[in-house]
Amino acid sequence: MIHPIKWEKGTLFLLDQRRLPHKLQWFRASGYKGVIYAIKNLVVRGAPAIGLAAAFGMVLAFRSLRKRDPKTLLLKLKKIAEEFLRARPTAVNLRWAVLEMTKVGETSIGDGLTPEDCLKALESRALSLLEEDIRVNKAIGDFGAELIRDGSTILTHCNAGALATGGYGTALGVIRSAHLQGKRIRVLVDETRPWLQGHRLTAWELTQEGIEHYVIVDSAAGYFMAKGEVDMVVTGADRIAKNGDTANKIGTYSLAVLARENHVPFYIAAPTSTIDLTIPSGREIQVEVRSEEEVLLLEKKRIGPKGTKALNPVFDITPARLITGIITELGIATAPFERGIAELFSAHHRKNLGTGPKI
Amino acid sequence: MIHPIKWEKGTLFLLDQRRLPHKLQWFRASGYKGVIYAIKNLVVRGAPAIGLAAAFGMVLAFRSLRKRDPKTLLLKLKKIAEEFLRARPTAVNLRWAVLEMTKVGETSIGDGLTPEDCLKALESRALSLLEEDIRVNKAIGDFGAELIRDGSTILTHCNAGALATGGYGTALGVIRSAHLQGKRIRVLVDETRPWLQGHRLTAWELTQEGIEHYVIVDSAAGYFMAKGEVDMVVTGADRIAKNGDTANKIGTYSLAVLARENHVPFYIAAPTSTIDLTIPSGREIQVEVRSEEEVLLLEKKRIGPKGTKALNPVFDITPARLITGIITELGIATAPFERGIAELFSAHHRKNLGTGPKI
Repeated sequence: MIHPIKWEKGTLFLLDQRRLPHKLQWFRASGYKGVIYAIKNLVVRGAPAIGLAAAFGMVLAFRSLRKRDPKTLLLKLKKIAEEFLRARPTAVNLRWAVLEMTKVGETSIGDGLTPEDCLKALESRALSLLEEDIRVNKAIGDFGAELIRDGSTILTHCNAGALATGGYGTALGVIRSAHLQGKRIRVLVDETRPWLQGHRLTAWELTQEGIEHYVIVDSAAGYFMAKGEVDMVVTGADRIAKNGDTANKIGTYSLAVLARENHVPFYIAAPTSTIDLTIPSGREIQVEVRSEEEVLLLEKKRIGPKGTKALNPVFDITPARLITGIITELGIATAPFERGIAELFSAHHRKNLGTGPKI
Repeated sequence: MIHPIKWEKGTLFLLDQRRLPHKLQWFRASGYKGVIYAIKNLVVRGAPAIGLAAAFGMVLAFRSLRKRDPKTLLLKLKKIAEEFLRARPTAVNLRWAVLEMTKVGETSIGDGLTPEDCLKALESRALSLLEEDIRVNKAIGDFGAELIRDGSTILTHCNAGALATGGYGTALGVIRSAHLQGKRIRVLVDETRPWLQGHRLTAWELTQEGIEHYVIVDSAAGYFMAKGEVDMVVTGADRIAKNGDTANKIGTYSLAVLARENHVPFYIAAPTSTIDLTIPSGREIQVEVRSEEEVLLLEKKRIGPKGTKALNPVFDITPARLITGIITELGIATAPFERGIAELFSAHHRKNLGTGPKI
């Protein structure tokens, strides 16, 4: 199993996703600035994974602080938290993890722990977040796999696999679980322009697992749905609003519309830490617009003519009404999502599973 | 104005679309095998353009025939016609042009013309097809431009421009006409994977014309429609069935579904030679599946891991019910299309315009 985030003797190692699948190269961050660089430049990507990287980044940041008085330490920690929050705006897991780490720092400092012990507390929490994430993904996978029949063709977009998380994956975790249960499945992988996460990362993970798969250009998804060759679409998520509206990689919205048109079930797979209960709907989600060069250049070479510009929104919002279900580690929420999501967080569910991150 | 097809002293020159926009290089065909190579390998592409290239290819083929007896000449011409018909299956214009040329050959031979005079007749018909195509495109452009308001944003897919035709273009001809009428327009250009015709060819044509445009990845089209930033979608066509179902570049169907979802008018712009009255619906259209390498490789380098395969259907079928109108040189057909299309071919319309190719 792929573990793209490793913490070894106080150094963070990230499997460099800019180089995959051709090079298995580790990006080494011994300071928090390196982690921010890695998040901004897609060395690490995927909502859960950037949250985890930031958690370890907070440990590295705290370790580098020279001051020792509690008040200054807390102030600095909060400033660093803000720096991380600005790294990428759409995925909520980053905020969730950074706030979680800030809380641990606050408690430790408030309890009068020495800076060394505060550091230990932070490190310990980051490690538990990483472990929790893998456990959570496996729970998502198990819930989701129940939806998949033997012989199915599943279409997925971008990479919501082990590489996008602490390991195992969300949407790809569902596919992995179905495969591990012995179901024969075939995966259509959207290549996912402009960064080709589907073609470079998802196809690589599926190759590793020996799962039958075919890359298609993003605009061919509708063709295969219309031909009746897709039994289910499943993608990850970067932020889910209280009403179920979901931000995910650009193109997800189109898939959802096409799935509805062709009566194909459309599922989101994500940990509950991706659900942002502070926003009522997708209208409140900021869609990150990245550099036009990601569209204009291939391997640093211009595709089109000089003078041509590009627009590069990297996420879109899928309205809840187009979503069949949201597969989480606490179960599968269905419409009406406001209620379905609220129920996930009810004591009953939490007791049954026990591994859900706190919201 | 760009003229991608030139006939100079008995040699066919094709602006090599594999090299654009970085190199303006002419592919020279002095024999018909070269033309078939050019059609198969996308040196020339676009439904009307491949029809025209094939027409000149038939001239080159006839010229190379050594036999002089009428019966053998006709037999050979028909065999060559079949070779052309097999070059690419989806676009009907190729068939239309090849049958038109066969008819000219048949008549000339039947009339007892010398092989030299037959050749002249064929050459003359190919040249008139080229001229007609440009005239037809301008008529399409003028009809279509009426639909465009000042300040509009138009989304287009692939390249249905001068490069896809004898010159001027169909979908891009509509945009060109609106621009020439002084309307301020903004064009969103789908990059159009895997071959990037939008990014390489359409953006280049728009640059030449000085029309404001932005390349977007194919899967971002829905995002901009949902934001209310697209006033109209217009694409070309490779084959239109009697009922209006339309085959066009892969991804066109998705655009039509997204346009309907977002109440954006969706237009097809094509000459009537693209309408195939012999087939009742899109179900009868053969969708060409090209080599998986077009998806798997970028500049001959593999994008994904070894062992990953791809599926590469290069057209899809847009059902007539998703089409707002079909803009032709004889006017704009609207729903119900069976009737709308039949009306286009009525004497009334033909008399008014007079330039329509015979069907």
